[in-house]
Amino acid sequence: MITAVERVRAAYARIAQVDRPEVWIGLRPQADAESDAAAVDAKVAAGDRLPLAGRVLAVKGNIDVAGLPTTAGCPAYAYAPDTDAPAVARLKAAGAVVLGTTNLDQFATGLVGTRSPYGAVRNALSAEHVSGGSSSGSAVAVALGIADIALGTDTAGSGRVPAAFNGIVGLKPTFGLIPTEGVVPACASLDCVTVFARTLPEAERALCLMTASPGRALSAPAPRRPGPWRIAVPEPGQLGRLDTGWTEAFEAAAQRLADAGAELLPVDLAPFTEAAAMLYEGAFVAERYTAVGTFVDTHTDSPDLDPTVAGIISRAKDIPAHQLYADQQKLASLRVRALATLGDADALLLPTAPGHPTIAEVAADPRGANARLGRFTNSTNLFDLAAVAVPAGDVNGLPFGVMLIGPAFTDERLVRIAGLLTNPPLRLAVIGAHLSGQPLNGQLLAVGGRLVRTTTTARAYRLYALDTLPPKPGLIRVGTSGGGGTVEAEVWQLPAEGLGRFLSALPRPMALGSVELADGSFVTGFLCEPEAVEGAREITSYGGWRAYLAALPRP
Amino acid sequence: MITAVERVRAAYARIAQVDRPEVWIGLRPQADAESDAAAVDAKVAAGDRLPLAGRVLAVKGNIDVAGLPTTAGCPAYAYAPDTDAPAVARLKAAGAVVLGTTNLDQFATGLVGTRSPYGAVRNALSAEHVSGGSSSGSAVAVALGIADIALGTDTAGSGRVPAAFNGIVGLKPTFGLIPTEGVVPACASLDCVTVFARTLPEAERALCLMTASPGRALSAPAPRRPGPWRIAVPEPGQLGRLDTGWTEAFEAAAQRLADAGAELLPVDLAPFTEAAAMLYEGAFVAERYTAVGTFVDTHTDSPDLDPTVAGIISRAKDIPAHQLYADQQKLASLRVRALATLGDADALLLPTAPGHPTIAEVAADPRGANARLGRFTNSTNLFDLAAVAVPAGDVNGLPFGVMLIGPAFTDERLVRIAGLLTNPPLRLAVIGAHLSGQPLNGQLLAVGGRLVRTTTTARAYRLYALDTLPPKPGLIRVGTSGGGGTVEAEVWQLPAEGLGRFLSALPRPMALGSVELADGSFVTGFLCEPEAVEGAREITSYGGWRAYLAALPRP
Repeated sequence: MITAVERVRAAYARIAQVDRPEVWIGLRPQADAESDAAAVDAKVAAGDRLPLAGRVLAVKGNIDVAGLPTTAGCPAYAYAPDTDAPAVARLKAAGAVVLGTTNLDQFATGLVGTRSPYGAVRNALSAEHVSGGSSSGSAVAVALGIADIALGTDTAGSGRVPAAFNGIVGLKPTFGLIPTEGVVPACASLDCVTVFARTLPEAERALCLMTASPGRALSAPAPRRPGPWRIAVPEPGQLGRLDTGWTEAFEAAAQRLADAGAELLPVDLAPFTEAAAMLYEGAFVAERYTAVGTFVDTHTDSPDLDPTVAGIISRAKDIPAHQLYADQQKLASLRVRALATLGDADALLLPTAPGHPTIAEVAADPRGANARLGRFTNSTNLFDLAAVAVPAGDVNGLPFGVMLIGPAFTDERLVRIAGLLTNPPLRLAVIGAHLSGQPLNGQLLAVGGRLVRTTTTARAYRLYALDTLPPKPGLIRVGTSGGGGTVEAEVWQLPAEGLGRFLSALPRPMALGSVELADGSFVTGFLCEPEAVEGAREITSYGGWRAYLAALPRP
Repeated sequence: MITAVERVRAAYARIAQVDRPEVWIGLRPQADAESDAAAVDAKVAAGDRLPLAGRVLAVKGNIDVAGLPTTAGCPAYAYAPDTDAPAVARLKAAGAVVLGTTNLDQFATGLVGTRSPYGAVRNALSAEHVSGGSSSGSAVAVALGIADIALGTDTAGSGRVPAAFNGIVGLKPTFGLIPTEGVVPACASLDCVTVFARTLPEAERALCLMTASPGRALSAPAPRRPGPWRIAVPEPGQLGRLDTGWTEAFEAAAQRLADAGAELLPVDLAPFTEAAAMLYEGAFVAERYTAVGTFVDTHTDSPDLDPTVAGIISRAKDIPAHQLYADQQKLASLRVRALATLGDADALLLPTAPGHPTIAEVAADPRGANARLGRFTNSTNLFDLAAVAVPAGDVNGLPFGVMLIGPAFTDERLVRIAGLLTNPPLRLAVIGAHLSGQPLNGQLLAVGGRLVRTTTTARAYRLYALDTLPPKPGLIRVGTSGGGGTVEAEVWQLPAEGLGRFLSALPRPMALGSVELADGSFVTGFLCEPEAVEGAREITSYGGWRAYLAALPRP
């Protein structure tokens, strides 16, 4: 594996390449990061086991990193922390090297990624679209391949909406699982430190390391009812208006869970959406005034304040406490209803957001566009639930994401269920020694293969009898005008890891590529290196390997 | 996906092909299995969700299947059960079709697979070696690809030793998790129904379905200490004599867990091996007499009794109860020591067995060869622990297996840890648009890729500039005497599922095969279809894609 220093150099090369300066508030000098990385490399060379050696980390600008100002997205608010937040310290102790602090919706107030004097953060995949927020820079740094892991925070969706918009994983752990010391509060009773990564295992590893607290056991999740996963899935009619194609993408995600063996259960989404609406409309927003209201009030005319954020926070000053009591009572009642409708479901499946606005759309309606984004995320923290946001395909060329939401301390369980979405089974077309009953068929079975159907290739291939042991055919595409024929093929379904393992064990001269089938579809399938067919007998006319074998004289 | 009927036909074709009649005691007529499968297909067609539709099941001959005699490996003992054991009934209700009942060490007394009047069960991969037992036929039916899932039982290792010897997965669940009603007891206070499958997810799915017990919650596992997995690993010196190469294979398995981020902890194996020795040497064997002693005593001269098994059981008649009390006290004390040495480890890693004897070796020393096999498995049930046995590579051409053993009700956790062993990360050599900084590099990052090193191919390839968008090179092997050159390559490490997903998304004309590197090693890497290089410009002389791009005139 490359060294930590080499990884840091690659990260800075990538930063230069992507030209997204708005991602960062406090990007460290490369030499500083390299120096940290050299220390990691030295520890590894001395025999230390550092699980994150070679990983680079980005930290949201409202989390303390010693040596960098903590800004919370507001230059005038900045202070210089003496020590790392425990979340940062634990990842550094595991070998991660901090690249810097990232841009955010100011005071973590927003889900758009545009509410920052450091600039609107553009989506990693479309510069016209918002990154999502408030953990905007952290999500984009991971999505662009700059950082391996990034820390965010999540009070109402800030660790999940940007994950969905940028096609990455976002873990919103159970409240309290990761310490929030050294984090500028948004709503202190709801704030969670979150993790972004490109894959679930990478995100879960980081979560695991941050929750490590020697001597202190965590609360265990409630025992689950045995049997297949039970997933609560709302009817599309309950979801409200979604962007074009998102309803279908959501239903496809639910179907994927069902295909993996999960039971889908009905759920009444009303208590969730009612609670979500309370977040900014009700009294809870007053907690943001508790956190930074005095600062905002004393800097009303500062250009360092985002006007939308400042307006939200300063208006919260006058919310009376009796309204908060009333809202807390209402929330408690909604929570009872929400948990009742979830019943013994392991998780609730929801779109992470209802749609993905452009930067122009948000500029035209800063509060309305933002409020819409929290429809599905806002209730999670209010109800003391955990959530995992994962990519679930693309719609119109941009990522679509879903969340799995479950009871406190079921984080690990949610990650497992989410894995069913991120790694669906894959297909492989075989044409020779791996066909059913042939000598190498067991290799497919051993990695979890199941036969889907028998068909033929498109009339575009030539088949050769190769000089291999055991005997195998070699398939070469010659195009539809190249005098090729059709070849018998079986399509198998394999777990994603099974296809990886199968490929990894494949010897020369066999190769896997994209093979055209009789119906014009393409599927991963067997090909071979052209060197192997030189001088080999062409057997295309038999129509397949089994027919050729059957015609051979018996030895 | 093929229908259940088609799956059943394939299973019977495989049974005919492998010619291992000793696997079965009660193989059902194909028509009966097809009839059941047709009923499954009809339910699926009517909209029923059957998670095991299309899966075929083998059931150890000591577990009741209505319509087949339950023999426990002894023809004279056979009875005709009216109903399926709950374990069988639950899998059938989920859509699995039973193929028949399988051979076993008589009365589940043995770890070899040879103690049966229905014949010694030969290993799936070597007819000279034992299958392992007592769940011999079930393990071999799965390993040979006949059945997708098989049920075994495990009192002292019977569900794990044959998994190890045949290169498959064996789950020994927490005592009580799967009902043992309808199972001929061996030691009723220790017996567990077990699952064999070729992959962990398949085995876990079956376990999940069998533990499903509407309305009854399971005991939750004790909360674990947060942070990375902690795995107790004995020093090789504590393992006693292992077969040649097995110590190295065991250490490689431990290293693989460490590479995946687990902490390895020392452990004192003495209480485990002392308890293991008590299983047949002490008073616990009297429980076997409780189960079938009267039957054995009244059939002493029957050819249906295996002489070794009959001897073990009949000799247990005279064990005095005071010795049992003494042994129970000793065991309780050993258990305290065992749990103390495990501390807060999540699991104990052990070889599943110390070695793999031939059928001839077992015949020469039936009791001694058998007793040796239980060195690591015998203590699990005595200590009320759960275990997962998984393949961990090959040694001298035969499978080597390890177990992860943990506290009661940590079954799911053990499966997750075992997954680190069965799906280690894989490698991929890239030479073009996927190189660091090139346009498609993000595809590697998105599936969890990490750069390992930069090198070149062997001097055996030609590189072409293909007519693709984005521009890509095509690599064609021409052999060492074919005028080829070396080509710059980066080797990346990917999670197994990531490599599968990457391959699955690969468009024509790219292909992945086995590529030779400068050091003579082979690694999965990029190739391309020969059709794509026709008329393409050969650029081998540049030494790599980056050098070629750098030499292009700036547009």
